[in-house]
Amino acid sequence: VESDTDLWERAVASDRADPLAPFLERFVPLYPGVVYLDGNSLGRPPRDTLEHLTEVMAEEWGRGLIGSWDHWAELPFLVGDEIGIGLLGARPGEVLVSDSTSVNIYKLVMAALPARPGRRVLVIEEDNFPTDHYVLAGIARRHGLTVRTVPVDIDAGMQLSDLESRLDDEVALVCLSHVGYRSGALLDMAAITDLVHSVGALALWDLCHSVGVVPTDLTGAGADLAVGCTYKYLNAGPGAPAFLYVRAELGQSLEPPIWGWFGQVDQFAMEAAYRPRPGIGRFLVGTPPVPAIYAVRDGVRLTLEAGVDALRRKAMNLTDFVIYLADQWLVPLGFGVASPRQSGRRGAHVTLAHRRARQLRDELAALGVITDFRTPERIRVGPAPLACSFADVYTALIRLRDLAGA
Amino acid sequence: VESDTDLWERAVASDRADPLAPFLERFVPLYPGVVYLDGNSLGRPPRDTLEHLTEVMAEEWGRGLIGSWDHWAELPFLVGDEIGIGLLGARPGEVLVSDSTSVNIYKLVMAALPARPGRRVLVIEEDNFPTDHYVLAGIARRHGLTVRTVPVDIDAGMQLSDLESRLDDEVALVCLSHVGYRSGALLDMAAITDLVHSVGALALWDLCHSVGVVPTDLTGAGADLAVGCTYKYLNAGPGAPAFLYVRAELGQSLEPPIWGWFGQVDQFAMEAAYRPRPGIGRFLVGTPPVPAIYAVRDGVRLTLEAGVDALRRKAMNLTDFVIYLADQWLVPLGFGVASPRQSGRRGAHVTLAHRRARQLRDELAALGVITDFRTPERIRVGPAPLACSFADVYTALIRLRDLAGA
Repeated sequence: VESDTDLWERAVASDRADPLAPFLERFVPLYPGVVYLDGNSLGRPPRDTLEHLTEVMAEEWGRGLIGSWDHWAELPFLVGDEIGIGLLGARPGEVLVSDSTSVNIYKLVMAALPARPGRRVLVIEEDNFPTDHYVLAGIARRHGLTVRTVPVDIDAGMQLSDLESRLDDEVALVCLSHVGYRSGALLDMAAITDLVHSVGALALWDLCHSVGVVPTDLTGAGADLAVGCTYKYLNAGPGAPAFLYVRAELGQSLEPPIWGWFGQVDQFAMEAAYRPRPGIGRFLVGTPPVPAIYAVRDGVRLTLEAGVDALRRKAMNLTDFVIYLADQWLVPLGFGVASPRQSGRRGAHVTLAHRRARQLRDELAALGVITDFRTPERIRVGPAPLACSFADVYTALIRLRDLAGA
Repeated sequence: VESDTDLWERAVASDRADPLAPFLERFVPLYPGVVYLDGNSLGRPPRDTLEHLTEVMAEEWGRGLIGSWDHWAELPFLVGDEIGIGLLGARPGEVLVSDSTSVNIYKLVMAALPARPGRRVLVIEEDNFPTDHYVLAGIARRHGLTVRTVPVDIDAGMQLSDLESRLDDEVALVCLSHVGYRSGALLDMAAITDLVHSVGALALWDLCHSVGVVPTDLTGAGADLAVGCTYKYLNAGPGAPAFLYVRAELGQSLEPPIWGWFGQVDQFAMEAAYRPRPGIGRFLVGTPPVPAIYAVRDGVRLTLEAGVDALRRKAMNLTDFVIYLADQWLVPLGFGVASPRQSGRRGAHVTLAHRRARQLRDELAALGVITDFRTPERIRVGPAPLACSFADVYTALIRLRDLAGA
């Protein structure tokens, strides 16, 4: 067993060698002494975002006024492409910033159903994020469909064979999270999408917990549909608008369920009949939230500046360090590692199980160390690689040790 | 005919007597010489909004971090009530800030349909706003319903008798704009809602062009459902979140079509089964856009500070002045007044018809006078009473006269 001092030295040396360390200064500073390991729930405000937002509000809105719509109208597409091309391996015009993740799941599932006529089953992994479950359940109830769930080990993530056993030619669509919100388990998007396609179904990927920290190749994987939020690793702010992806080959054939004026081909002609835009734009509905999309842009640009490959490497190292310290300090105190142990099999957070997890999470927070509680009795440790250091991980885990061992 | 000087004196005297004049200073200033008469499309940024937004971003988001959700989660309800109780005659818990107007129309129509089982007809006025038409058409197409349109004189607004002739016991819901986007015609909400109820249908009111400038009594009128945007007279910013209203007596019986995690009764329990919140909260879907809702709050508070009755009086006076000047200067040049002439029958904008409206609107804009073009060949003059003066109206119309008469 290494001494506390040796482990601290290890943290300090990792931070010294970290090429992304300068990015820690790009965020609005925390209160002194606070350690924030919950960027997987809510990222932090980049300094650039605050500066630009004030400019946008005063200049583009306050003085550009209604005329600014000439360029604002393009923002959902431009920032969509920055996300899609820069982070997701999408092609131009396949990603759109709009609405919330939940509304986007609804729009895509409802658009997908008529593309798979006669198929009455939606498949979802048992431990997918609640809102994904809710949206599918609501659609199923209203439209007489069946939701079939894939059993999942909540610490290890879904097995391909378990998915396979739930697939047949009744399945219209499969909804999966690229990285599980609870365990952090990372799925093999290409292999799973192939499997889904083998029964003729469509694959809808929820990228909320992977975008910005896991390099993703939607095109290479053959993914059909995807959604994701921007308020976690992309640091776009609480309730920031989400994005959606539709593979270009599908785009023209899918009919959006909610026909809104921003999805209309020539919106300001105020035509009587709705004709959807030719591409991804048909999935716009109401007026896009301009200042919020600028915040998305700034968050995405900071991520692109760091580089998603470098962020992935750092996230693997940070989460490896979480597990290394947990093995030294926490497992002997009754903790379990409730995430895959191989860094290649998880996203950017590690979940620790302990019978007093909720209480310990609260006690940690009282010491200024912010993590996240998730049922059943789990602490999520999410050292977002753009905004966290190895010293942060050390500080959090030694405090957790001292609390749990007291 | 009065001289230009006499009319200018009249404008100056009106501004001097205007109790709301101090509010002109509460907005981010325009470029010198700009006259903005398009607040009916996009309001202007209040100074308070910019200040508070920077605070919210740095303090509540940057330092409060994930813990701020403890109070952020209440914002859609709190700001909803400020709008509902303060501006719409709603009772507590009947208004919610969420999503866009278009998405809210979709949610409410889809929720209303099962409450009127067997009825397969949606009714809409012919000249309602395009997105209202599109949303209803999309629902009708997908669910095998019929949309019945009420013919409307586009300059005078809908007649009660024309609506009456389209109503029968097949009608599930009637969707109308309180103030028409083109003509500015103001409908009699109470009389029309009574008529709609007389055939057992539900009334959905679009308040986009009336909220903040027309005192509204949803409770007194017996309105069932309503939606509205906040980026026009409420000055909440481009693409700011919208609101929705559901009469309390209906709230518990309506099932939202999009089941999202913020509509779930105990969201952070992350339960497997969706159970909707007991009241209006079931119409929340995804994560609420926090900074944008704060901007709504600040816009609403500025409106409440001025008082909607005072705003109504000023709007009537401003639009009367538009018509007065138009009669003196513009009608002789071939313009028509394409709005109701009685101030009690219109909202806060006046529409002027002219065969070269588009070109004149562009030429006006080049002189720094911002109005709005709408088909067919109409200029909308929208002197938002919180942010415009009588001198603004004078300046705009004399320039229009000089352009049209040249």
